[in-house]
Amino acid sequence: MRLAVIAGDGIGPEVVAEGLKVLGGIAPDLETTPYDLGAARWQRTGELLPDTVLDELRQHDAILLGAIGDPGVPPGILERGLLLRLRFELDHHVNLRPAKLFDGVRSPLADPGEIDMLCVREGTEGPYTGNGGVLRRDTPQEVATEVSLNTAFGVERVVRYAFERSQARPRRHLTLIHKTNVLTHAGSLWSRTVEEVGAEFPEVTVAYQHVDAASMFFITDPGRYDVIVTDNLFGDIVTDVAAAVTGGIGLAASGNLDASGAHPSMFEPVHGSAPDIAGQGIADPTATVLSVALLLEHLGRADQARKINAAVAFDLSTRDPRGPVRTTEVGDRLAALAGG
Amino acid sequence: MRLAVIAGDGIGPEVVAEGLKVLGGIAPDLETTPYDLGAARWQRTGELLPDTVLDELRQHDAILLGAIGDPGVPPGILERGLLLRLRFELDHHVNLRPAKLFDGVRSPLADPGEIDMLCVREGTEGPYTGNGGVLRRDTPQEVATEVSLNTAFGVERVVRYAFERSQARPRRHLTLIHKTNVLTHAGSLWSRTVEEVGAEFPEVTVAYQHVDAASMFFITDPGRYDVIVTDNLFGDIVTDVAAAVTGGIGLAASGNLDASGAHPSMFEPVHGSAPDIAGQGIADPTATVLSVALLLEHLGRADQARKINAAVAFDLSTRDPRGPVRTTEVGDRLAALAGG
Ligand SMILES: CC(C)[C@H](C(=O)O)[C@@H](O)C(=O)O
Ligand SMILES: CC(C)[C@H](C(=O)O)[C@@H](O)C(=O)O
Repeated sequence: MRLAVIAGDGIGPEVVAEGLKVLGGIAPDLETTPYDLGAARWQRTGELLPDTVLDELRQHDAILLGAIGDPGVPPGILERGLLLRLRFELDHHVNLRPAKLFDGVRSPLADPGEIDMLCVREGTEGPYTGNGGVLRRDTPQEVATEVSLNTAFGVERVVRYAFERSQARPRRHLTLIHKTNVLTHAGSLWSRTVEEVGAEFPEVTVAYQHVDAASMFFITDPGRYDVIVTDNLFGDIVTDVAAAVTGGIGLAASGNLDASGAHPSMFEPVHGSAPDIAGQGIADPTATVLSVALLLEHLGRADQARKINAAVAFDLSTRDPRGPVRTTEVGDRLAALAGG
Repeated sequence: MRLAVIAGDGIGPEVVAEGLKVLGGIAPDLETTPYDLGAARWQRTGELLPDTVLDELRQHDAILLGAIGDPGVPPGILERGLLLRLRFELDHHVNLRPAKLFDGVRSPLADPGEIDMLCVREGTEGPYTGNGGVLRRDTPQEVATEVSLNTAFGVERVVRYAFERSQARPRRHLTLIHKTNVLTHAGSLWSRTVEEVGAEFPEVTVAYQHVDAASMFFITDPGRYDVIVTDNLFGDIVTDVAAAVTGGIGLAASGNLDASGAHPSMFEPVHGSAPDIAGQGIADPTATVLSVALLLEHLGRADQARKINAAVAFDLSTRDPRGPVRTTEVGDRLAALAGG
């Protein structure tokens, strides 16, 4: 297994070290190549993602990413030039974000019930393409636009992926989240696509909710959800709501998948670089370890993935939910539990 | 006070009746004109908002709206043709949505703390303008776009309104919510505008959060917010999150304001027509009554507004938070409490 590793900024290197500790213990054939990308490199050299690096990344089976970002970098630079560029260049059209409330984890909800959802967020379209612009900047007549691009090709493949995942789960339920009553052009394409692809999956029941209503139900009744499919921007928001109710982004894992397998997929914790706690050894590496499990699953190593998930579940059920975290200790425990 | 009343569909007429009961008791100069608009009229006549009706609405001091919508109407028809058309024609650029956790109200959060925020959502721009379209519909080459339009004129006026409201509150804190790291064109306009207008309000402290992070903090730390300003679509989502954590849309009031006063403003509960419970007399009219308080405040009748808010606060603190609601009984109690 050839793994490209982008540890990144802030707590990125700390959590990635633990992810690799767990992965190395379970996958002895692991070969890693580190890539120095992120705020630090940009500040030092002005480089974001040189083409030669991108070419090298393509030669790997998968990519593990820690976190990218620094308050000293203006908004958009690292996102557009590195994080989103990777997603677009490597055709990461499925942004996979499970949200499960593990036993022993404190939800901010008084009565969370069982939460176990799988959010399938589109990753290469919508308002994330950079399309749009500014006219008459810095004048009272300024106009700024953002264009959400949605194609039958792009919507169909992510909807199909979501149906396939729904079909493989016990509840076989899929919820489309959009805003079809206002965004009628894109909304119609998404609705029709779900209807058409759904005809091929008669066992999967389908629901639809507007994004505003769904954001409320994620809080008042999260147990109703199984698999969710939604566009890039709505997915960005609702997956953070889902992360919040299942214990926070300290536990939220994600995969940026090219489901076709043509390009390496990339796995990363949802949290950012958290510069305020970087270097102190107190970042929770659990989201990174869970992202490693998604990585293994994606590479067809379901058994190894299951071991990691079981280790995390056991560890969380026995941790003090309010207690402080020591990054390396969590990694040691998870490696020991999973590696056996 | 000349009030146009659009009771609308489903539970709309039921909750509006109670709103008017409370308003009539406190504002003896009230003159109401009912307007039959909504799903029922459209289904009967194909009419949404005839120009003559719009002209009549303009002659009023304000508009009270119940709820519009019916599952039998395709998505977008009533929204684009009636609800949003009213907002756009009457230049309702401030969509005002307070979110306060009243004593005695059950929040779904385990530890909500004090929540008292005022969301100022832009109402006439962003992705709500209908701009965009579909190319090659129903083919594998279909492309659907949605265009978010943002103007210096439109952003400046709503940001200024938000600063004025912040300035008048004890905490004097304003949070801009956007997604400046991805929507860089519109994000830059919003950020620069907040910076520029903020220079005129040196006493107001300003924070910025990405919409995904904010949606999480609304759940994990809602007490940090005072006034919020955001665009039309982000505002749609985060105000529903805010409503959820403060007890649900049964209590969420809103005002669609033309802050210039050139056109009548419109007040409405955030909830929809709830056809599943319509006609049973069990809809909670509290959000409508709170919307009436916003209406009075907007018309410069702060004393009357205060009486209603106090009545609601008292009633909620003495209600059984899990008990069933009888629409008319709540209205009777609030009218008696406020009217004295
Ligand atoms: C950092 C940012 C570009 C990114 C996104 O908006 O997708 C992040 O919020 C995420 O969810 O992975
Ligand atoms: C019904 C719909 C058009 C509307 C909106 O999106 O603004 C509603 O959700 C609201 O928040 O008032």
